[in-house]
Amino acid sequence: MEYNVNRRDVDFILKEQMHYEKLLELPAFKDYSLEMFDMVLDQALKFAQQEVAPINASSDKEGCQFDGKNVKAPKGFKELYQKFAENGFIGSDVPTTYGGQGLPFSVVMPMSEFFSGSSVAFMMYPGLTRGAAHLIETFASEELKNIYVQKMYSGQWGGTMGLTEPQAGSSVGDIKTIAEPQADGSYKIKGGKIFISSGDHDLTENIIHLVLARIPGDPEASTKGISLFVVPKIRVNKDGTLGEPNDVRTVNIEHKMGIKGSATCTLAFGDNDNCIGYLVGNRMAGMKQMFQMMNEARLLCGMQGLSIAGAAYESALAYAKVRVQGQGKTIVEWPDVRRMLMVQKATVEGLRALLYMTAFYEDMGKYHPDAEKREYYEGFADLLTPMCKSYGSDQGFRVTELAMQTYGGYGYISEYPVEQYMRDVKISSLYEGTNGIQALDLLGRKLSLRGGQVVQQFYQMIDEFVTANQNTPVLKNELSEFKKALDSVAQTAMSFMEMTGRGDFNYPMLSATNFLNMFSGVVIGYFLMEQAVIAQKN
Amino acid sequence: MEYNVNRRDVDFILKEQMHYEKLLELPAFKDYSLEMFDMVLDQALKFAQQEVAPINASSDKEGCQFDGKNVKAPKGFKELYQKFAENGFIGSDVPTTYGGQGLPFSVVMPMSEFFSGSSVAFMMYPGLTRGAAHLIETFASEELKNIYVQKMYSGQWGGTMGLTEPQAGSSVGDIKTIAEPQADGSYKIKGGKIFISSGDHDLTENIIHLVLARIPGDPEASTKGISLFVVPKIRVNKDGTLGEPNDVRTVNIEHKMGIKGSATCTLAFGDNDNCIGYLVGNRMAGMKQMFQMMNEARLLCGMQGLSIAGAAYESALAYAKVRVQGQGKTIVEWPDVRRMLMVQKATVEGLRALLYMTAFYEDMGKYHPDAEKREYYEGFADLLTPMCKSYGSDQGFRVTELAMQTYGGYGYISEYPVEQYMRDVKISSLYEGTNGIQALDLLGRKLSLRGGQVVQQFYQMIDEFVTANQNTPVLKNELSEFKKALDSVAQTAMSFMEMTGRGDFNYPMLSATNFLNMFSGVVIGYFLMEQAVIAQKN
Repeated sequence: MEYNVNRRDVDFILKEQMHYEKLLELPAFKDYSLEMFDMVLDQALKFAQQEVAPINASSDKEGCQFDGKNVKAPKGFKELYQKFAENGFIGSDVPTTYGGQGLPFSVVMPMSEFFSGSSVAFMMYPGLTRGAAHLIETFASEELKNIYVQKMYSGQWGGTMGLTEPQAGSSVGDIKTIAEPQADGSYKIKGGKIFISSGDHDLTENIIHLVLARIPGDPEASTKGISLFVVPKIRVNKDGTLGEPNDVRTVNIEHKMGIKGSATCTLAFGDNDNCIGYLVGNRMAGMKQMFQMMNEARLLCGMQGLSIAGAAYESALAYAKVRVQGQGKTIVEWPDVRRMLMVQKATVEGLRALLYMTAFYEDMGKYHPDAEKREYYEGFADLLTPMCKSYGSDQGFRVTELAMQTYGGYGYISEYPVEQYMRDVKISSLYEGTNGIQALDLLGRKLSLRGGQVVQQFYQMIDEFVTANQNTPVLKNELSEFKKALDSVAQTAMSFMEMTGRGDFNYPMLSATNFLNMFSGVVIGYFLMEQAVIAQKN
Repeated sequence: MEYNVNRRDVDFILKEQMHYEKLLELPAFKDYSLEMFDMVLDQALKFAQQEVAPINASSDKEGCQFDGKNVKAPKGFKELYQKFAENGFIGSDVPTTYGGQGLPFSVVMPMSEFFSGSSVAFMMYPGLTRGAAHLIETFASEELKNIYVQKMYSGQWGGTMGLTEPQAGSSVGDIKTIAEPQADGSYKIKGGKIFISSGDHDLTENIIHLVLARIPGDPEASTKGISLFVVPKIRVNKDGTLGEPNDVRTVNIEHKMGIKGSATCTLAFGDNDNCIGYLVGNRMAGMKQMFQMMNEARLLCGMQGLSIAGAAYESALAYAKVRVQGQGKTIVEWPDVRRMLMVQKATVEGLRALLYMTAFYEDMGKYHPDAEKREYYEGFADLLTPMCKSYGSDQGFRVTELAMQTYGGYGYISEYPVEQYMRDVKISSLYEGTNGIQALDLLGRKLSLRGGQVVQQFYQMIDEFVTANQNTPVLKNELSEFKKALDSVAQTAMSFMEMTGRGDFNYPMLSATNFLNMFSGVVIGYFLMEQAVIAQKN
């Protein structure tokens, strides 16, 4: 399967909209240069196209195999994983302490787009490993860090996140997995987890599970009582060598609509009361810690939407340019096909700006030397995260629908890539908190960030853009329509906050998804119009 | 896989909105009674639930097998096909002359909904057979009719439609298949067809292909020169017994995203110059004849959208009522889930009304004793057909998307039915003329039917409904908003007709799909509000 991306648009956002040279002014990235960023992006794209994309279709056909004991990933994944790790791609954006590359997230976001666009199923393995390792790196004791983190970033061991249980999906607080304290400071883990991506596979010699569990006596039926544990598949000796198996059993793998190359496992911990785990950081801090990972994962979900949408669009465009139908014309000449392609293009470029700019806000929010600026940008990243996740995944799916329609009947058959894209991208709307959960997050948590100041500052930034450019000849009408939409979002947000203020939650909750879509549409409109202004100036 | 349908809503439309007792006043249906209609519907639903639905999931997993020579349909299809035929379901709505049941299309439409909702893949086989047989019945010579039609309705022989060729999809006029006249009045067929549903299988002892081809000398690169031929897989002697194989070779089957139980074949006719076909009706009338089948097929595409949407909705609703998440609540209690279910419900019920009422217009247009009434209703059916096809399939897909979202992560795995529904329903947007083609049909042909009179009469019917009910308390606001939408459709249609009148086709063609969606939304809104008025009165 070929993978193509509009590199010109990628560069346009990074260099002319985001101005990613600003990142070099941050102490964290002082050792980098624009040339190095460019080089890393080139290298990532080349790797995506030459190494990852070629096994995307075959891994979908083959899927994962489970023999009742062990899971085998599709052919080629093991070798690819090692090459991927050797290139330093697993820990691209984490500190260099344990073997990360320390790149800004703003640069890693396009890299991730290239990789996921080439095979979202494959990318689940390094993605989960990075997330799990980074949790240990951020919250665990020095001892745990020294044992686990470097081996995970280097590709020697894999990682997973164990949250979901059959009765606890959206309501993580209802988990029943137990961690019984042992005399030596470790814990005995007992319970079952489902939907564990990369839960078992043959890519690495060991797999490190990060498992949410409750220590007996801690609050039940609430996220408050949850703690986080490192649970290796094979026990690790103090010197880092492998010991005995750790009573972690793979019960089953799911048969799914898409991302078939990604092993989604049901795991049983402690069937024989012999599963040892180690507490990460503070007791009962599990949910808070997990949220670091979940926030990152939500941005990556949106990025999956963008990446597959981009790949699907490029593929539909290439097809439309060569497929001849009617009057000897290529179909790209037919107005309805042009319409479909233009909607795809605008959506992809809008989502790309949304995702990249959110990554930029993340970087600024984390690394800016000025605390006030950090707060300002961190707020924007927090505000936009549920939009990235939800709008990115839903609109990404919508783009694959239009791409398939561009192909006509050929889009439905496996000979062409778009039906796989459609199946693969759908998962992003469902996992890491369904899109309905994201909408509640936007409404319930994000609008009220710093007492509503964050959304106010974000509104102000856009409003200033409108004022500054309202006389731009080509955008005059668009901006005046846009201003109405912007104000309508602001008014809706205000009225929701009034309602919830007087205890009326039903209507806002009923409208949360529509509100998220409305807000996201305005945000994307803003980024696209900013691009138009920039393009016109140059 | 379980199949459920809201039988109350089906009856509500038939009995309180359509008033299908009016059909009994038509001479064509004078031998029927409402009790008989009800009985047939009961029988069809029971058959769908007990016989068809149980093999839907397994047929998806198994798919069709091709050994290089012959195609094998999924396990159970052969036996099911015979049972289906024995019940008289293949020719439910065709005249009784050759074994049809002579039921009104208005009754067969809900039957088809039940069947397709239970397995759209299985229904491809009897559906194509019926379509092919009915073409022969309508246009062919007595001799051909006598040989073929009854054996097809009775389930002894299957049927297919051979239109598409690799270079001729949306542009059927570009076909290259040739029919060379022979001394005995038959033709030698030579050419290749792709995407032939039910093109080969093991359900019946023979398969009768209806093939579009060009007689040498007839106009090229246009639909004008195309003729229609009966081409049996195995030759048939004058007495109806089977003869020699007819040089029809199955080249391949497609691997598709969905409807995997339906064999989509590439066929080669006359590899050895020995494929005999028989002209159906007049030379160069092929396209016109095929249009009868295509119009029926387009309505059935919309019905597929409805049927799978209905099945997906019922399944999501049942799940939401038992799945507990958060605060011990079933998820149906959460506002965002209610919103998703309500949108699904409204879409399904709106599509159902659109499809059923279009079937009713078809019946009235065909069988009303008054020629003026026939013209009136036929116009409505013609006008609504592209909306049924395009809006029905696209919105049907959209409903499966919401149904999957209702399930959360479980929606993505094959243990639950909705991921198959989503994959299966997508085909309806692509085949039988892509939805883009439907939009052009609405704009280019249907708006100008009888010089614009048809759309004018349709507008008038809705406008009268609005006027008559504008003071209904509960619908007052809705109707006033609706009236604006209705007039906006009318104005848009008018402005398009002005543009095309002065030779400006680009903008209307660019907007055709959006216009179809806008118009369809208004039509569905009309049917739903009519239901509201009826429900309020009772």
